Amino acid sequence: MKLVQFMLCTGKIHLGVLEGKEIIDLNSHFHWVPIDLVRFLHEHEHAYEKLKEVAADPLNKRIPLNKVHLLPPIKRPDKILGIGLNYTDFCRENKIPPPPEPIVFSKFASTIIGPYDKIKHPACSKAVDWEVELVVVIGKVARNVKAKDAFDYVFGYTATQDLTAKDWVHQNGGQYLLAKNMDHFCPIGPAIVTKEEILDPHNVNIKTWVNDALKQNGNTKNMIFKIDQLIEYLSSVITLLPGDLICTGTPAGVGSTRNPPEYLKPGDVLKSEVEGVGILENLVTEYKDYNKLL
Amino acid sequence: MKLVQFMLCTGKIHLGVLEGKEIIDLNSHFHWVPIDLVRFLHEHEHAYEKLKEVAADPLNKRIPLNKVHLLPPIKRPDKILGIGLNYTDFCRENKIPPPPEPIVFSKFASTIIGPYDKIKHPACSKAVDWEVELVVVIGKVARNVKAKDAFDYVFGYTATQDLTAKDWVHQNGGQYLLAKNMDHFCPIGPAIVTKEEILDPHNVNIKTWVNDALKQNGNTKNMIFKIDQLIEYLSSVITLLPGDLICTGTPAGVGSTRNPPEYLKPGDVLKSEVEGVGILENLVTEYKDYNKLL
Repeated sequence: MKLVQFMLCTGKIHLGVLEGKEIIDLNSHFHWVPIDLVRFLHEHEHAYEKLKEVAADPLNKRIPLNKVHLLPPIKRPDKILGIGLNYTDFCRENKIPPPPEPIVFSKFASTIIGPYDKIKHPACSKAVDWEVELVVVIGKVARNVKAKDAFDYVFGYTATQDLTAKDWVHQNGGQYLLAKNMDHFCPIGPAIVTKEEILDPHNVNIKTWVNDALKQNGNTKNMIFKIDQLIEYLSSVITLLPGDLICTGTPAGVGSTRNPPEYLKPGDVLKSEVEGVGILENLVTEYKDYNKLL
Repeated sequence: MKLVQFMLCTGKIHLGVLEGKEIIDLNSHFHWVPIDLVRFLHEHEHAYEKLKEVAADPLNKRIPLNKVHLLPPIKRPDKILGIGLNYTDFCRENKIPPPPEPIVFSKFASTIIGPYDKIKHPACSKAVDWEVELVVVIGKVARNVKAKDAFDYVFGYTATQDLTAKDWVHQNGGQYLLAKNMDHFCPIGPAIVTKEEILDPHNVNIKTWVNDALKQNGNTKNMIFKIDQLIEYLSSVITLLPGDLICTGTPAGVGSTRNPPEYLKPGDVLKSEVEGVGILENLVTEYKDYNKLL
């Protein structure tokens, strides 16, 4: 099942299930269904089964995909956790030894933009880099979860570009926060794919194109800390909540390690694919005016 | 004006104004008033004036303070920003040179607890330290704000303990995130005091007691980067949103620099005061079971 949040031409925001070129509108008939997946996950322990049951009802309206605007499938998670240096090929190209334990940083919910939204290039960076990633969506409260049980706590997966201002990574006393959290630095989507659809999340191709040139061409098999290990580690320190996102790291092929280095600039089209999830396509534009982030 | 969020004996959550030993219940008569200050700030450009007008209405019920449970005055901000090493006396006692620019880290909204809630001591740390701080509450969208205009964007102030697992500060590849974000690591309150009540936020006494022994006895005049400078700096990199919290750093007197070092343990009572805001009092207990964070 592929879950999406979308805006109708009336401006109303609904939750839906993507099926081919159509969306099953879960709010067209069932008014008790929240329009927000995080809330649905909080309210329903067996969210997948409940969503499947609701989606199967013929009373739901079906809307052609090209009649709506796809929004980020999750908009206000409590936490977006990022894992630094988590691919063997990324570490190799950066000439950094693989870390002995996961390196965890975070992104603010307000950095999230939709799968086809514009990335406004921040004026304060000259080195905005691409980092395509598989994202794990947590389905229920996870605390002190063992690796062997970790997938019970996974609701599904999505895709992101963990955009990073590489000229800020070594600023801010070495804290990644500002480098990772400029406005619009977290396009996600196009859907949340429930875990049943991705049989082996550790064998998924992930790719980035800039203006149709293939830049990253990796596979999640090269993750250093696997999804189950990450959930065990993270949940031993902090409580993971329904809707929390874990961005699992990026493979080789980023701009900063190229010779000469390459960075995003206004006018570029950034295309990102996580196999089984779909494709994000974000145009980079100049950052002129503030646009509403929430 | 001192704004609070509180729970009635019925379990209902309301927004109120604290006046002495009474709370003016802003949701008792005016049902359009959101129970959530972040939402109020988003919906009202002139939030202070609007709240003052609503609070003045004699139709509001007044409730004795001792009949309610005070909650965190803000529960779900988009961002909690922390500023590291921001007091001259703190840098001196830590034998660290004052940083050339603010060092910014973040805390998750889910780490927030109320002014009298229990701090559950995490099993994964043996070095949980106190750090009392003045907190700035942002009132409206701030992007590229100059220092001279910065206070126009401040709604008010509150108090926090920026609890920190000092044994994790140098873990996680040097990223502060995990050290700062264990569950319950952000008690705030007891109220949001609007800026009109604190004439000079750079001359405010701030104190911590552990079991009635005074540990921190500082003054915000020793801040390295002042509030207006912080807002200029932060808003040049990321957009600040209504309800965002900036924890402005802690003065000398923390546990880690004592000889021998002192840390919080179950049974300790942590009392924290920001002059003009009020006193937090949090009992440290063992972390046994997960309790609902949101």
